[in-house]
Amino acid sequence: MVAQQDPARLSLTVDRFRDGSWTRDPDPIAVEAPLELRIATEAGARPITITMRTPGNDFELAAGFLYSEGIVASPDDIVDVRYSDEVMISEDDRRNTVIVTLRPGLEVDLKRMDRNFTQTSACGVCGKESLNALGLGGCRPLAMGTTITADVLRSLPSALRSGQAGFDATGGVHAVGLFDTSGQIISLREDVGRHNAFDKMVGQRLLARKMAKLQQSVAVLSGRASYELLQKALIARIPIVAAIGAPSSLAVEIASTFNITLVGFLKAGSFNVYAGRERICD
Amino acid sequence: MVAQQDPARLSLTVDRFRDGSWTRDPDPIAVEAPLELRIATEAGARPITITMRTPGNDFELAAGFLYSEGIVASPDDIVDVRYSDEVMISEDDRRNTVIVTLRPGLEVDLKRMDRNFTQTSACGVCGKESLNALGLGGCRPLAMGTTITADVLRSLPSALRSGQAGFDATGGVHAVGLFDTSGQIISLREDVGRHNAFDKMVGQRLLARKMAKLQQSVAVLSGRASYELLQKALIARIPIVAAIGAPSSLAVEIASTFNITLVGFLKAGSFNVYAGRERICD
Repeated sequence: MVAQQDPARLSLTVDRFRDGSWTRDPDPIAVEAPLELRIATEAGARPITITMRTPGNDFELAAGFLYSEGIVASPDDIVDVRYSDEVMISEDDRRNTVIVTLRPGLEVDLKRMDRNFTQTSACGVCGKESLNALGLGGCRPLAMGTTITADVLRSLPSALRSGQAGFDATGGVHAVGLFDTSGQIISLREDVGRHNAFDKMVGQRLLARKMAKLQQSVAVLSGRASYELLQKALIARIPIVAAIGAPSSLAVEIASTFNITLVGFLKAGSFNVYAGRERICD
Repeated sequence: MVAQQDPARLSLTVDRFRDGSWTRDPDPIAVEAPLELRIATEAGARPITITMRTPGNDFELAAGFLYSEGIVASPDDIVDVRYSDEVMISEDDRRNTVIVTLRPGLEVDLKRMDRNFTQTSACGVCGKESLNALGLGGCRPLAMGTTITADVLRSLPSALRSGQAGFDATGGVHAVGLFDTSGQIISLREDVGRHNAFDKMVGQRLLARKMAKLQQSVAVLSGRASYELLQKALIARIPIVAAIGAPSSLAVEIASTFNITLVGFLKAGSFNVYAGRERICD
């Protein structure tokens, strides 16, 4: 990854397939990074929540979150908002940690919050209360071996679309489709939450005792590819993830780190490859 | 709301504005409802997480979630999956509660899960460990008084779009715009998470000590309108929420209950009104 000018965007070089030929071009990606929100107490700064956000306006995010959750009711309830100044953590981690000092005397049930705000399913961080725990350290990279042609990839948007009965009716649900590398559909699930659609698809395979096939499959996402969906693909050992929408920076990072092929902006005539280009043959 | 044939969809009668005239038509909405996942233990069924999902394939969702979180690794780890059969709760609540019995001897750190899986930010339930806590009981309905013309509403998609610098660059971020009822933009925030974009917008107003204006404002969402965004609008006392995308059933329910005007599928030439039609004048 190249140097970052704007903290909200990252410029990556991607492999772009368009009208039958490949180019390598820079592509700006939305940054997705964990923000840990802490509340200052006499006993030190207490972690309240981690959310996967795009850096920028972080103090507003902290204030707005505390307001939405009913923890603060007026600007006077917030005495100070700042980034961490811990010397033992990296500059990146400091910029991903916001500490709010509340007005003295403001009653906050930290025990309740401790139970309540440790997960965001949109991020999949799931209670890993340290930013370092995002490392997915225990996971092995995916093996090579599964390949797919550009032509099959280009056929997947319409194949997914034709199975989206819930979207046809309501326009309000995401879909995740599982396909084999010849483009045959294996499973398709819809849900208002894209993480739920993915879990349903994996759960269907698990309950049907057909997990092995996932390792030669392609997951097609009706929307964007975020951290949490790549995390789920990694754990389910799905080697190719293709999103109709954009990928986030963390999605690209997980895909690169664990050797998952990540395709974005998948259309009948074009797509971008953000990681694992080797699995795509012409 | 009318009787429901398919648990994943609900047919509502909506006010539809198209090319200058109004009709009342049935409109199918994606159902969003809380699913509480419990693990059976000797001491009873223990709540693990609540996720806002579209009903259907709930057992797969439970199995897939447990797999994605590393709690089960094979189908043999799951002995039984069923809906709650508690007699003291409603049939609806029973169908929103799935109980998984794990293989005896499977080591699960329930304490860790208790801390970790109580919130999903995609849903905004934020640790309310009982489905009943979704009631938002303490909130008052919003006052009437703020109105907006159909013409101003129709101008908002392009006004929002012209401020979405992050989306222009990356195609990967949601936006929330706050407008006054003459269509002037007050604030616009972008984020990979739509809940974050909303929190940033509210936090910006809070830190600027300009919360009062929210009560005469319109929040425009670049995507869909879900439970969590309506919950945030309710708490910030924003009387009109207009989404470029579809609303979920729970979004409509919150809007109706608390007298929020909810517009969906907002375009230059047309939109649907799901609640609070009275605030829109021709």
